[in-house]
Amino acid sequence: MEQNSPLSPLEMAIQLPLTTWNLQNDRFTKLVDQLTDAQLSAAIAPGKNSGVYLLGHVIAVHDGMMALLGLGERHYAHLDEAFLRNPDNSDLPRPSITELKAALHAVNARLAAGFATLTPSGWLERHTAVSAEDFEKEPHRNKLNLLLSRTTHLAYHLGQLILLK
Amino acid sequence: MEQNSPLSPLEMAIQLPLTTWNLQNDRFTKLVDQLTDAQLSAAIAPGKNSGVYLLGHVIAVHDGMMALLGLGERHYAHLDEAFLRNPDNSDLPRPSITELKAALHAVNARLAAGFATLTPSGWLERHTAVSAEDFEKEPHRNKLNLLLSRTTHLAYHLGQLILLK
Repeated sequence: MEQNSPLSPLEMAIQLPLTTWNLQNDRFTKLVDQLTDAQLSAAIAPGKNSGVYLLGHVIAVHDGMMALLGLGERHYAHLDEAFLRNPDNSDLPRPSITELKAALHAVNARLAAGFATLTPSGWLERHTAVSAEDFEKEPHRNKLNLLLSRTTHLAYHLGQLILLK
Repeated sequence: MEQNSPLSPLEMAIQLPLTTWNLQNDRFTKLVDQLTDAQLSAAIAPGKNSGVYLLGHVIAVHDGMMALLGLGERHYAHLDEAFLRNPDNSDLPRPSITELKAALHAVNARLAAGFATLTPSGWLERHTAVSAEDFEKEPHRNKLNLLLSRTTHLAYHLGQLILLK
Protein backbone atom coordinates (compact mmCIF):
# COMPACT_ATOMS: atom_id res chain seq x y z
CA MET A 1 0.00 0.00 0.00
CA GLU A 2 2.29 2.79 -1.28
CA GLN A 3 1.27 6.33 -0.53
CA ASN A 4 2.72 9.80 -0.80
CA SER A 5 0.90 11.45 2.08
CA PRO A 6 -0.56 9.67 5.10
CA LEU A 7 -4.17 8.58 4.75
CA SER A 8 -6.77 10.21 6.98
CA PRO A 9 -8.43 7.86 9.49
CA LEU A 10 -11.53 7.60 7.29
CA GLU A 11 -9.45 7.00 4.15
CA MET A 12 -7.57 4.23 5.99
CA ALA A 13 -10.82 2.68 7.26
CA ILE A 14 -12.14 2.52 3.67
CA GLN A 15 -8.86 1.49 2.05
CA LEU A 16 -8.47 -1.63 4.20
CA PRO A 17 -11.77 -3.30 3.22
CA LEU A 18 -10.88 -2.60 -0.42
CA THR A 19 -7.48 -4.24 0.05
CA THR A 20 -9.19 -7.18 1.74
CA TRP A 21 -11.59 -7.53 -1.20
CA ASN A 22 -8.71 -7.39 -3.69
CA LEU A 23 -6.78 -10.06 -1.82
CA GLN A 24 -9.72 -12.48 -1.73
CA ASN A 25 -10.66 -11.77 -5.32
CA ASP A 26 -7.09 -12.30 -6.53
CA ARG A 27 -6.88 -15.61 -4.69
CA PHE A 28 -10.24 -16.75 -6.08
CA THR A 29 -9.37 -15.73 -9.65
CA LYS A 30 -5.92 -17.33 -9.56
CA LEU A 31 -7.44 -20.55 -8.26
CA VAL A 32 -10.10 -20.56 -10.99
CA ASP A 33 -7.42 -20.02 -13.64
CA GLN A 34 -5.36 -22.92 -12.24
CA LEU A 35 -8.20 -25.44 -12.14
CA THR A 36 -8.77 -27.57 -15.25
CA ASP A 37 -12.19 -28.07 -16.81
CA ALA A 38 -12.26 -31.55 -15.28
CA GLN A 39 -11.48 -30.21 -11.81
CA LEU A 40 -14.08 -27.45 -12.06
CA SER A 41 -16.70 -29.93 -13.26
CA ALA A 42 -16.28 -32.05 -10.12
CA ALA A 43 -18.27 -31.62 -6.90
CA ILE A 44 -16.38 -29.92 -4.03
CA ALA A 45 -17.57 -32.82 -1.80
CA PRO A 46 -19.89 -35.79 -2.48
CA GLY A 47 -23.41 -34.51 -3.22
CA LYS A 48 -22.37 -30.83 -2.92
CA ASN A 49 -22.01 -28.02 -5.49
CA SER A 50 -19.68 -28.36 -8.45
CA GLY A 51 -16.79 -25.98 -9.03
CA VAL A 52 -18.45 -24.64 -12.16
CA TYR A 53 -21.58 -23.80 -10.17
CA LEU A 54 -19.53 -21.85 -7.61
CA LEU A 55 -17.73 -20.04 -10.43
CA GLY A 56 -20.96 -19.03 -12.18
CA HIS A 57 -22.52 -18.11 -8.83
CA VAL A 58 -19.66 -15.77 -7.90
CA ILE A 59 -19.72 -14.11 -11.35
CA ALA A 60 -23.49 -13.50 -11.08
CA VAL A 61 -23.18 -12.06 -7.56
CA HIS A 62 -20.24 -9.83 -8.48
CA ASP A 63 -21.99 -8.66 -11.64
CA GLY A 64 -24.92 -7.72 -9.41
CA MET A 65 -22.59 -5.51 -7.36
CA MET A 66 -22.17 -3.23 -10.38
CA ALA A 67 -25.86 -2.32 -10.25
CA LEU A 68 -26.14 -2.33 -6.43
CA LEU A 69 -23.18 0.05 -6.13
CA GLY A 70 -24.53 2.27 -8.89
CA LEU A 71 -21.47 1.62 -11.04
CA GLY A 72 -23.15 0.45 -14.22
CA GLU A 73 -25.53 -1.98 -15.85
CA ARG A 74 -25.24 -5.71 -15.33
CA HIS A 75 -23.61 -7.71 -18.14
CA TYR A 76 -24.27 -11.25 -16.91
CA ALA A 77 -27.87 -11.25 -15.66
CA HIS A 78 -28.46 -14.24 -17.98
CA LEU A 79 -26.35 -16.32 -15.55
CA ASP A 80 -28.85 -15.83 -12.70
CA GLU A 81 -31.14 -18.66 -13.82
CA ALA A 82 -28.46 -21.35 -13.71
CA PHE A 83 -26.29 -19.99 -10.89
CA LEU A 84 -28.42 -17.87 -8.52
CA ARG A 85 -32.10 -18.75 -8.75
CA ASN A 86 -31.58 -22.49 -8.92
CA PRO A 87 -29.37 -25.00 -7.17
CA ASP A 88 -26.62 -26.77 -9.11
CA ASN A 89 -28.25 -28.41 -12.15
CA SER A 90 -26.23 -29.14 -15.26
CA ASP A 91 -29.44 -29.48 -17.30
CA LEU A 92 -29.88 -25.69 -17.21
CA PRO A 93 -28.18 -23.80 -20.08
CA ARG A 94 -24.69 -22.68 -19.04
CA PRO A 95 -21.81 -21.00 -20.87
CA SER A 96 -18.66 -23.09 -21.30
CA ILE A 97 -16.02 -23.05 -18.56
CA THR A 98 -13.75 -21.07 -20.90
CA GLU A 99 -16.47 -18.43 -21.27
CA LEU A 100 -17.06 -18.35 -17.50
CA LYS A 101 -13.36 -17.85 -16.81
CA ALA A 102 -13.32 -14.91 -19.23
CA ALA A 103 -16.47 -13.49 -17.60
CA LEU A 104 -14.82 -13.61 -14.16
CA HIS A 105 -11.89 -11.55 -15.43
CA ALA A 106 -14.26 -9.13 -17.18
CA VAL A 107 -16.42 -8.52 -14.10
CA ASN A 108 -13.29 -8.11 -11.95
CA ALA A 109 -12.02 -5.40 -14.30
CA ARG A 110 -15.36 -3.57 -14.35
CA LEU A 111 -15.59 -3.64 -10.54
CA ALA A 112 -12.01 -2.41 -10.11
CA ALA A 113 -12.67 0.49 -12.49
CA GLY A 114 -15.92 1.29 -10.67
CA PHE A 115 -14.39 1.10 -7.20
CA ALA A 116 -11.72 3.59 -8.32
CA THR A 117 -14.44 6.21 -8.91
CA LEU A 118 -15.81 6.03 -5.35
CA THR A 119 -14.56 8.40 -2.65
CA PRO A 120 -14.39 7.37 1.04
CA SER A 121 -17.58 9.27 1.81
CA GLY A 122 -19.15 7.81 -1.36
CA TRP A 123 -18.68 4.32 0.14
CA LEU A 124 -20.89 5.42 3.02
CA GLU A 125 -23.75 6.43 0.73
CA ARG A 126 -26.72 4.14 0.21
CA HIS A 127 -26.61 1.24 -2.20
CA THR A 128 -29.32 1.08 -4.85
CA ALA A 129 -31.39 -1.65 -3.12
CA VAL A 130 -32.38 0.76 -0.32
CA SER A 131 -34.63 3.80 -0.78
CA ALA A 132 -33.51 7.29 0.31
CA GLU A 133 -36.28 7.19 2.93
CA ASP A 134 -35.21 3.86 4.44
CA PHE A 135 -31.58 4.89 4.32
CA GLU A 136 -32.29 7.83 6.60
CA LYS A 137 -33.42 5.35 9.28
CA GLU A 138 -30.86 2.66 8.41
CA PRO A 139 -27.63 4.42 7.41
CA HIS A 140 -25.63 1.21 7.71
CA ARG A 141 -27.21 -0.02 4.44
CA ASN A 142 -24.42 1.61 2.48
CA LYS A 143 -21.93 0.61 -0.18
CA LEU A 144 -19.19 -0.28 2.30
CA ASN A 145 -21.55 -2.74 3.99
CA LEU A 146 -22.25 -4.34 0.63
CA LEU A 147 -18.52 -4.62 -0.09
CA LEU A 148 -17.91 -6.27 3.28
CA SER A 149 -20.73 -8.78 2.90
CA ARG A 150 -19.64 -9.66 -0.64
CA THR A 151 -16.07 -10.14 0.60
CA THR A 152 -17.10 -12.71 3.19
CA HIS A 153 -19.34 -14.36 0.56
CA LEU A 154 -16.31 -14.66 -1.70
CA ALA A 155 -14.07 -16.02 1.07
CA TYR A 156 -16.76 -18.57 1.97
CA HIS A 157 -16.81 -19.96 -1.57
CA LEU A 158 -13.02 -19.71 -1.91
CA GLY A 159 -12.78 -22.06 1.08
CA GLN A 160 -14.94 -24.49 -0.88
CA LEU A 161 -13.38 -24.12 -4.32
CA ILE A 162 -9.91 -24.82 -2.93
CA LEU A 163 -11.07 -28.36 -2.11
CA LEU A 164 -10.87 -29.12 -5.85
CA LYS A 165 -7.08 -28.57 -5.96
CA MET B 1 -27.79 -1.38 14.48
CA GLU B 2 -29.78 0.77 16.91
CA GLN B 3 -28.36 4.14 17.75
CA ASN B 4 -29.38 7.32 19.50
CA SER B 5 -27.30 9.79 17.54
CA PRO B 6 -25.99 9.29 14.02
CA LEU B 7 -22.55 7.73 13.77
CA SER B 8 -19.72 9.84 12.37
CA PRO B 9 -18.29 8.58 9.04
CA LEU B 10 -15.30 7.04 10.85
CA GLU B 11 -17.53 5.42 13.50
CA MET B 12 -19.66 3.93 10.72
CA ALA B 13 -16.60 2.68 8.81
CA ILE B 14 -15.40 0.88 11.96
CA GLN B 15 -18.83 -0.35 13.08
CA LEU B 16 -19.53 -2.19 9.82
CA PRO B 17 -16.48 -4.50 9.91
CA LEU B 18 -17.39 -5.30 13.53
CA THR B 19 -20.95 -6.16 12.50
CA THR B 20 -19.56 -8.30 9.67
CA TRP B 21 -17.30 -10.14 12.13
CA ASN B 22 -20.21 -10.73 14.52
CA LEU B 23 -22.40 -12.10 11.75
CA GLN B 24 -19.77 -14.58 10.55
CA ASN B 25 -18.85 -15.57 14.07
CA ASP B 26 -22.49 -16.14 15.05
CA ARG B 27 -23.02 -18.31 11.98
CA PHE B 28 -19.88 -20.32 12.67
CA THR B 29 -20.72 -20.82 16.35
CA LYS B 30 -24.34 -21.81 15.69
CA LEU B 31 -23.17 -24.32 13.11
CA VAL B 32 -20.60 -25.81 15.51
CA ASP B 33 -23.28 -26.12 18.21
CA GLN B 34 -25.63 -27.88 15.77
CA LEU B 35 -23.11 -30.44 14.54
CA THR B 36 -22.87 -33.72 16.44
CA ASP B 37 -19.59 -35.25 17.56
CA ALA B 38 -19.89 -37.74 14.69
CA GLN B 39 -20.42 -34.98 12.13
CA LEU B 40 -17.51 -32.92 13.47
CA SER B 41 -15.25 -35.97 13.44
CA ALA B 42 -15.82 -36.49 9.71
CA ALA B 43 -13.71 -34.98 6.91
CA ILE B 44 -15.30 -32.03 5.08
CA ALA B 45 -14.41 -33.82 1.81
CA PRO B 46 -12.49 -37.04 1.12
CA GLY B 47 -8.86 -36.63 2.23
CA LYS B 48 -9.43 -33.08 3.54
CA ASN B 49 -9.53 -31.58 7.06
CA SER B 50 -11.97 -32.87 9.67
CA GLY B 51 -14.56 -30.63 11.28
CA VAL B 52 -12.84 -30.95 14.64
CA TYR B 53 -9.58 -29.74 13.10
CA LEU B 54 -11.31 -26.65 11.67
CA LEU B 55 -12.96 -26.01 15.03
CA GLY B 56 -9.68 -26.23 16.96
CA HIS B 57 -7.93 -24.17 14.27
CA VAL B 58 -10.46 -21.34 14.50
CA ILE B 59 -10.30 -21.31 18.32
CA ALA B 60 -6.48 -21.11 18.24
CA VAL B 61 -6.52 -18.30 15.66
CA HIS B 62 -9.19 -16.32 17.52
CA ASP B 63 -7.41 -16.82 20.83
CA GLY B 64 -4.31 -15.39 19.15
CA MET B 65 -6.32 -12.26 18.27
CA MET B 66 -6.55 -11.44 21.99
CA ALA B 67 -2.77 -11.02 22.15
CA LEU B 68 -2.38 -9.42 18.69
CA LEU B 69 -5.02 -6.80 19.51
CA GLY B 70 -3.49 -6.15 22.92
CA LEU B 71 -6.68 -7.27 24.66
CA GLY B 72 -5.24 -9.88 27.00
CA GLU B 73 -3.21 -13.04 27.39
CA ARG B 74 -3.93 -16.12 25.34
CA HIS B 75 -5.86 -18.93 27.08
CA TYR B 76 -5.61 -21.67 24.44
CA ALA B 77 -1.99 -21.57 23.23
CA HIS B 78 -1.84 -25.30 24.04
CA LEU B 79 -4.10 -25.88 21.01
CA ASP B 80 -1.49 -24.54 18.58
CA GLU B 81 0.43 -27.81 18.34
CA ALA B 82 -2.57 -29.86 17.17
CA PHE B 83 -4.48 -27.19 15.25
CA LEU B 84 -2.06 -24.53 13.96
CA ARG B 85 1.49 -25.84 13.68
CA ASN B 86 0.55 -29.23 12.26
CA PRO B 87 -1.91 -30.47 9.68
CA ASP B 88 -4.90 -32.56 10.76
CA ASN B 89 -3.58 -35.52 12.76
CA SER B 90 -5.76 -37.24 15.33
CA ASP B 91 -2.65 -38.80 16.94
CA LEU B 92 -1.76 -35.42 18.46
CA PRO B 93 -3.32 -34.73 21.90
CA ARG B 94 -6.61 -32.86 21.52
CA PRO B 95 -9.32 -31.79 23.96
CA SER B 96 -12.71 -33.47 23.55
CA ILE B 97 -15.24 -31.95 21.17
CA THR B 98 -17.33 -30.89 24.18
CA GLU B 99 -14.33 -29.01 25.55
CA LEU B 100 -13.62 -27.41 22.17
CA LYS B 101 -17.21 -26.23 21.84
CA ALA B 102 -16.97 -24.61 25.29
CA ALA B 103 -13.63 -23.03 24.33
CA LEU B 104 -15.18 -21.47 21.20
CA HIS B 105 -17.88 -19.81 23.30
CA ALA B 106 -15.28 -18.65 25.84
CA VAL B 107 -12.99 -17.07 23.26
CA ASN B 108 -15.98 -15.42 21.56
CA ALA B 109 -16.99 -13.82 24.87
CA ARG B 110 -13.46 -12.60 25.61
CA LEU B 111 -13.12 -11.08 22.13
CA ALA B 112 -16.52 -9.36 22.34
CA ALA B 113 -15.59 -7.84 25.72
CA GLY B 114 -12.20 -6.76 24.35
CA PHE B 115 -13.66 -5.26 21.15
CA ALA B 116 -16.03 -3.18 23.29
CA THR B 117 -13.03 -1.41 24.86
CA LEU B 118 -11.59 -0.23 21.52
CA THR B 119 -12.48 3.19 20.11
CA PRO B 120 -12.66 3.85 16.34
CA SER B 121 -9.24 5.50 16.39
CA GLY B 122 -7.96 2.66 18.58
CA TRP B 123 -8.80 0.22 15.78
CA LEU B 124 -6.39 2.16 13.55
CA GLU B 125 -3.51 1.76 15.98
CA ARG B 126 -0.83 -0.87 15.42
CA HIS B 127 -1.36 -4.49 16.38
CA THR B 128 1.24 -6.09 18.63
CA ALA B 129 3.01 -8.06 15.86
CA VAL B 130 4.35 -4.84 14.31
CA SER B 131 6.94 -2.55 15.95
CA ALA B 132 6.28 1.16 16.47
CA GLU B 133 9.10 1.84 14.00
CA ASP B 134 7.67 -0.38 11.25
CA PHE B 135 4.18 0.93 11.88
CA GLU B 136 5.33 4.44 11.04
CA LYS B 137 6.22 3.23 7.54
CA GLU B 138 3.32 0.75 7.25
CA PRO B 139 0.29 2.31 8.99
CA HIS B 140 -2.07 -0.23 7.38
CA ARG B 141 -0.73 -2.89 9.79
CA ASN B 142 -3.36 -1.92 12.33
CA LYS B 143 -6.03 -3.64 14.39
CA LEU B 144 -8.79 -3.06 11.82
CA ASN B 145 -6.70 -4.83 9.20
CA LEU B 146 -6.29 -7.79 11.55
CA LEU B 147 -10.05 -7.89 12.17
CA LEU B 148 -10.75 -7.87 8.43
CA SER B 149 -8.26 -10.62 7.65
CA ARG B 150 -9.56 -12.77 10.50
CA THR B 151 -13.13 -12.25 9.27
CA THR B 152 -12.32 -13.60 5.80
CA HIS B 153 -10.38 -16.46 7.44
CA LEU B 154 -13.49 -17.31 9.43
CA ALA B 155 -15.80 -17.09 6.40
CA TYR B 156 -13.40 -19.33 4.43
CA HIS B 157 -13.61 -22.08 7.05
CA LEU B 158 -17.36 -21.55 7.57
CA GLY B 159 -17.80 -22.36 3.87
CA GLN B 160 -15.99 -25.63 4.56
CA LEU B 161 -17.60 -26.58 7.88
CA ILE B 162 -21.09 -26.20 6.42
CA LEU B 163 -20.34 -29.16 4.13
CA LEU B 164 -20.72 -31.42 7.21
CA LYS B 165 -24.41 -30.53 7.65
